[in-house]
Amino acid sequence: MKVVVVGAGISGLKAAATLYQRGVQECVVLEARSRIGGRLHSVTGYDGKRKYDLGASWHHDTLRNDLFFEECRISAGGAGGTAGGAAPFAFDDDFMILIDNRLGRLDRHPEMRLEIVDSEISKFADLEYHQKLGTRDTSFRDLVYKYLFEKRQFLTDNQIRYTPQLSRFLELWHGIDWRLLSARDTYFGHQGRNAFVMNFDAVVRRISSGFPQEWIHCDSPVAAISRTRDGKVQVRTQGPEGADIEADYCIVTVPQSVLQLSTETMPAEGRIQFSPPLNTRITGAFERMHFGGLGKVIFEFDRTTWSLESTKILTLAQSSSEFVQRVRSATSLEALVEDPETPQVGTCWDHPLYFVNLSKIDGTPSFMMIMQEPLTQYIESLGGDKQRVVEYFRPVLDKVLTTLGSPPLQDAMAVDHGDDVGGFAPLLKNVIVSNWTQDEFSRGAYSACHPGDDALDMIVALSDGQGPRIRFAGEHTVMDGAGCVYGAWESGKREAEFILEDANWPQ
Amino acid sequence: MKVVVVGAGISGLKAAATLYQRGVQECVVLEARSRIGGRLHSVTGYDGKRKYDLGASWHHDTLRNDLFFEECRISAGGAGGTAGGAAPFAFDDDFMILIDNRLGRLDRHPEMRLEIVDSEISKFADLEYHQKLGTRDTSFRDLVYKYLFEKRQFLTDNQIRYTPQLSRFLELWHGIDWRLLSARDTYFGHQGRNAFVMNFDAVVRRISSGFPQEWIHCDSPVAAISRTRDGKVQVRTQGPEGADIEADYCIVTVPQSVLQLSTETMPAEGRIQFSPPLNTRITGAFERMHFGGLGKVIFEFDRTTWSLESTKILTLAQSSSEFVQRVRSATSLEALVEDPETPQVGTCWDHPLYFVNLSKIDGTPSFMMIMQEPLTQYIESLGGDKQRVVEYFRPVLDKVLTTLGSPPLQDAMAVDHGDDVGGFAPLLKNVIVSNWTQDEFSRGAYSACHPGDDALDMIVALSDGQGPRIRFAGEHTVMDGAGCVYGAWESGKREAEFILEDANWPQ
Repeated sequence: MKVVVVGAGISGLKAAATLYQRGVQECVVLEARSRIGGRLHSVTGYDGKRKYDLGASWHHDTLRNDLFFEECRISAGGAGGTAGGAAPFAFDDDFMILIDNRLGRLDRHPEMRLEIVDSEISKFADLEYHQKLGTRDTSFRDLVYKYLFEKRQFLTDNQIRYTPQLSRFLELWHGIDWRLLSARDTYFGHQGRNAFVMNFDAVVRRISSGFPQEWIHCDSPVAAISRTRDGKVQVRTQGPEGADIEADYCIVTVPQSVLQLSTETMPAEGRIQFSPPLNTRITGAFERMHFGGLGKVIFEFDRTTWSLESTKILTLAQSSSEFVQRVRSATSLEALVEDPETPQVGTCWDHPLYFVNLSKIDGTPSFMMIMQEPLTQYIESLGGDKQRVVEYFRPVLDKVLTTLGSPPLQDAMAVDHGDDVGGFAPLLKNVIVSNWTQDEFSRGAYSACHPGDDALDMIVALSDGQGPRIRFAGEHTVMDGAGCVYGAWESGKREAEFILEDANWPQ
Repeated sequence: MKVVVVGAGISGLKAAATLYQRGVQECVVLEARSRIGGRLHSVTGYDGKRKYDLGASWHHDTLRNDLFFEECRISAGGAGGTAGGAAPFAFDDDFMILIDNRLGRLDRHPEMRLEIVDSEISKFADLEYHQKLGTRDTSFRDLVYKYLFEKRQFLTDNQIRYTPQLSRFLELWHGIDWRLLSARDTYFGHQGRNAFVMNFDAVVRRISSGFPQEWIHCDSPVAAISRTRDGKVQVRTQGPEGADIEADYCIVTVPQSVLQLSTETMPAEGRIQFSPPLNTRITGAFERMHFGGLGKVIFEFDRTTWSLESTKILTLAQSSSEFVQRVRSATSLEALVEDPETPQVGTCWDHPLYFVNLSKIDGTPSFMMIMQEPLTQYIESLGGDKQRVVEYFRPVLDKVLTTLGSPPLQDAMAVDHGDDVGGFAPLLKNVIVSNWTQDEFSRGAYSACHPGDDALDMIVALSDGQGPRIRFAGEHTVMDGAGCVYGAWESGKREAEFILEDANWPQ
């Protein structure tokens, strides 16, 4: 039996490893990029030692995450960080510091109690969408506005003004602005604490060491996948070196965003031509599912000059007292939500931004900043222009630094300008920007629900596959662990096992 | 049509008001005590002005609490606090201050992060009991020990030592020690914020003003309830003044603890003899349901000398480093949980205690302390001996005061000794102790689940009633709002409406 796996992300690697473990000898893993790992991507910092993950950074749901459990077993066996070993991790959940540009810290404010109102909004959403039937899905922004409108008599002006900006933290989970985000899908249950991984390249190495390295072919984007007359699958790679590979089965693990190109006719880098075309259940699912744009900026400093009080810092988007008046005086919910407010890039104070204080996690004097669509597209499009990235974020970065007891940046153009010029101010040594939305082989971060979307359609359609020979895996094909590393990993295992069973492969 | 309502608590009062509103002219409300309100009980403080609720204090689940919504509508109409008006309230949810006797404040500790581990324990419980089938119910203590045993590799020594003491906060919701508490029942979803009521006597007045006052007969405990040959119900009151009242329907709203006496043969104050006896579904339900012992102590001061940072203060029961070693070295969960540790009264540092900082809520310079079984029984049995109550709680009270930036009590015997003798220390003017466990007409606080219990049996059995003529209402007969004022209120309405429908009463 021969299997082609399209994509060497965690799901493709896990599929190949599972096949090998069960005795399959013929398998080809075709990877479009010149590296494996997909959206697990560890890069090295300015000093050649620090490492950062520009893709996934956490083991989520650690009470029921089987990849996490596997890592723990291996780690308990003594191996860690080296080839074949587990990746170190640290539980980094913490009390979130909330920073408003005007008022400074607003977390655990004894009068505003924003976290408590925010928690009530999540319950309000639960009652709207999970304990009532037939509530029409809206944007998350409109849901928050509905709460504010209905409960305004029980809220202070400051609660009306600032709680929405705290609730927008969820933008940084889904990777999209609250005006794009499905209210029904915004909240989800965490199955235990989150563990920050240092770094995921060790996991990629470990899983990929579970099968012969010669199976992997990098720089091999796939152009077409066809069923042959004798019931096999033919996979054609792109470019002048392109070749046809005939196999019994194929597992397609390209991101949902790349697979979507197959449902359109426009030629595009990464597009796979399926013949016969993707079935209507799959193509229909794309009408009710989207893809988000989570992005990261790493700010690397010479040393830590700020407080280690918390690993989590959220800067709140700016708000206005006029908004409070609008809520107070609205005569109907419709009047309040009618302003469409198309998401725009604006300034760094127009979005909530999430700063992970790496210094508290493992001593690295850097912040990992997380941003969302449409800001991510803009910042990632600046590409290598680190000065412009710093200029854009400098106000919020200085506010984070000074709020955490540090002097502000030494100067705006300090990037790469060499050694510390003296004084106590932190020196920004380097900035690293992710590239997911610009990269043609990812075209964004991971699946996300817009209002009215239904992730279930996509999950069911893709886990059913394009018949038994052409299968799908990846974060967008699973229910438990959707959007997560362990979900993708689990889906690779699932598809390998499906094939082994379909082929009556010996146990 | 004539109806007898047994008990003038909120459920009985609401039943009578509903009947009157629908045009019923003959109704008798028999109340055993010399006051109405049942477990809604507002008392006056030492200055003759302050008022405290020794029973229920909160509107819970304010996103879906219909009694709360009714109060808000009335309050918006202008009336508040007077006869027929609504009771003022304040949303008092706050960031809980955690106090350990040895280490002082442990809330939001940047290294221990106890609240985050505590939250993971609640998710662990959810996975054990609601996402798996067939997990045997244990005590809440044993569930926490199971978590500690299974996850010890992911927990620091301080997390193992102190998180259980934070998790025990739930004892103060259920009113029983964690060794008595059903793990399956410990966690429940809050449907929105909680609103502290000032005071519930206004609600009692308002509901009871909804029908003729002559319907209410205080000091009239019921001795027997029988079906007559012609299908009616005969209710006999106790004592020399006892009388037989014949009615078409009877709604029994006595607490579950008092109703339980009817399933036993021992004579007891408050016991009602049913003929025919309570049906086997009801009597069987008592085998799987218990009653808790939440109690309150009000500490009244001359003035506020402490911080208003938070309304919520939890003092943690003492813990030991030996316990950490036991968890670390346990070779099996069985070995860890085997120590039965029968709940005992011990000292004030042997229990978590919850102090509501009334001064932050409405300026009253008092703490409302909440305690649990078996401590409640002991403290309430001290009755009027306020000196002994102060002696018992003085260490924890002084710790709360000093942690909140106040000097300790002026002297241990300061109760009632008159004016401030000078200095900045707060003067304890009075102590008020609840009496629920000693009172024969309540015999505790409200229903609570021991390991293996199932509240559903009781709720179904009692809401089905003893046939259509003998009905039951109260906090122990409802699913939504079980144990809550609004649940009891709703059950009274439910039974009145059942009777009206059964009697084909005109709409």
